[in-house]
Amino acid sequence: MDCLMSRIVTVAAAQLGPIQRAEGRESVVARMIRLLERAQQRGAQVVVFPELALTTFFPRWYCENRDEADGWFETSLPSPATQPLFDAIKRYGLMVYLGYAELAWEPDEQGVVRKRRFNTSVVIAPNGEIVFKYRKVHLPGQAEFAPYRKVQHLEKRYFEVGNLGFPVVRTPVAPGLEVNMGMLICNDRRWPEAWRVLGLQQVELVMVGYNTPSLNHENQGFEAHHLRVQNSQLSVQAGCYQNATFGVSVAKAGKEDGHELFGHSIIVNPQGEVIALAASWDDELVVADCNLAMCDLGRNTLFNFAKHRRPEAYSRIVEQTGSVAPAQWKPSF
Amino acid sequence: MDCLMSRIVTVAAAQLGPIQRAEGRESVVARMIRLLERAQQRGAQVVVFPELALTTFFPRWYCENRDEADGWFETSLPSPATQPLFDAIKRYGLMVYLGYAELAWEPDEQGVVRKRRFNTSVVIAPNGEIVFKYRKVHLPGQAEFAPYRKVQHLEKRYFEVGNLGFPVVRTPVAPGLEVNMGMLICNDRRWPEAWRVLGLQQVELVMVGYNTPSLNHENQGFEAHHLRVQNSQLSVQAGCYQNATFGVSVAKAGKEDGHELFGHSIIVNPQGEVIALAASWDDELVVADCNLAMCDLGRNTLFNFAKHRRPEAYSRIVEQTGSVAPAQWKPSF
Repeated sequence: MDCLMSRIVTVAAAQLGPIQRAEGRESVVARMIRLLERAQQRGAQVVVFPELALTTFFPRWYCENRDEADGWFETSLPSPATQPLFDAIKRYGLMVYLGYAELAWEPDEQGVVRKRRFNTSVVIAPNGEIVFKYRKVHLPGQAEFAPYRKVQHLEKRYFEVGNLGFPVVRTPVAPGLEVNMGMLICNDRRWPEAWRVLGLQQVELVMVGYNTPSLNHENQGFEAHHLRVQNSQLSVQAGCYQNATFGVSVAKAGKEDGHELFGHSIIVNPQGEVIALAASWDDELVVADCNLAMCDLGRNTLFNFAKHRRPEAYSRIVEQTGSVAPAQWKPSF
Repeated sequence: MDCLMSRIVTVAAAQLGPIQRAEGRESVVARMIRLLERAQQRGAQVVVFPELALTTFFPRWYCENRDEADGWFETSLPSPATQPLFDAIKRYGLMVYLGYAELAWEPDEQGVVRKRRFNTSVVIAPNGEIVFKYRKVHLPGQAEFAPYRKVQHLEKRYFEVGNLGFPVVRTPVAPGLEVNMGMLICNDRRWPEAWRVLGLQQVELVMVGYNTPSLNHENQGFEAHHLRVQNSQLSVQAGCYQNATFGVSVAKAGKEDGHELFGHSIIVNPQGEVIALAASWDDELVVADCNLAMCDLGRNTLFNFAKHRRPEAYSRIVEQTGSVAPAQWKPSF
């Protein structure tokens, strides 16, 4: 490695242990502040928290009237409860990815201002400003109570599909060091389309928060439980490799309201290697130096998109939503 | 597993050891026939050979005049040299993926009939008919001699970009057993767009042949050699998992004309697991029973495309070829 070419950003995955339904934001924010303090001690410049980091993973709970769930949402950021988090971000001089449930009064596609709910993440700058916002596009689960499930997964009930695309923003994190940052949330990480849209904007650091149950309650017969973590890592590793980017994928871990979330937060380099792993089921910080110069190999050779991509062959990706049956062959004799 | 729901197709990866430049098609075809015989003994119904299976990987050799390379191309299939392969396919009753260099006199985009060259694969039915054809879309390497490379990789010189899209064809392989088959060639396997276009046509078995050097002669400083195999597998495993399909990825392996190809052919299930691996550097057959019912879990739940994909957020994938610089953020104070 040529030191003159190095562009090192020090990244922390700030995994959270379980947040029980009864635990208040003040308690959670205090836990997050301890992780920020530790991040500063470890020399981190960028800290990534999980999806919906301020509350329990409430989409497992069914509310017939959606408004009853409003207590799990943020109507402003910072709020009185989250102001201490913003104060700590300033105190420690960190750039922070924060996932939360967002309640906004906004015009919808028809121009009517109404109450809207999104599964959202923001990047918060060391000065407390919001650098940019992302709203989750790939919402898993159901919109209605599913009697066949032992545990509900109601993201399609509580959230609208994100309407901000997949933005990438070039963000200064230190004098002379700017990072092309992108965000995904949880299930988005399994969708190569999402990674590619970020890659097409020269992303260098993809930040992902997640809450993923250790058991798939959709299981219809063939999924080995131990593959749940493996396939999460597989998706992040492939996304990083195929887009020549670093990735940091951060869990809520452990038994939350009686239901296990699988943890295993990772930091991944542009060759798809896991360079840091959180192996506890609790609040835990893992840190890695990410040399952004490593993004150059992929994007100048194998994944030089301008040279090698063939969009004319990809039209089904945007022209179809679901799959279609293929042509059928019959032997002529 | 519910036996009543099983739809098992027995698939063989027929890896080839090196084919030296001096080795004639007759010798190669004889080696391939021995693998077909072994496939029949092992109960295989579908056999997958590598990319450019009939010759050495000739794009490492520079010909100033492209016509001098014509001896490496097939002008008809079968030909006198490949007829014994077709005879063996009939004799053993197999469905076979064959990669080869195709020379065709065909109209180009301007309607002018001229000599055209493609990196091609076909599926050959047990009755000897060609079921369908694919021409490689993602051609790596250069069109001109690259003086900085110790070994050339001239696919962009010898081949035109494939013009048949990524077809999937529902193909009978036994009474009551039809398989949605798709094909990729070598470098295509690293491109999630290619996998997704197959997935959007309900592919159940993706067949890939490859010739991949153990050393990256584009290496500009950061690629560990041992990652070459790992990242090939990563791409196939992610492609299978994210499209709920089986995959069979088959190498030419060993030292060919002095240059090592990395082997490690695999069969992968829809959960991204490697269920068979060729670990020699020679002609080798590995076989796996692929229960197509395993494709259902992914496509009915997490990767139910109709429910979860959001094409309106993917437009960059077809509207851009290369990447574009992101927006820049500056703090307001």
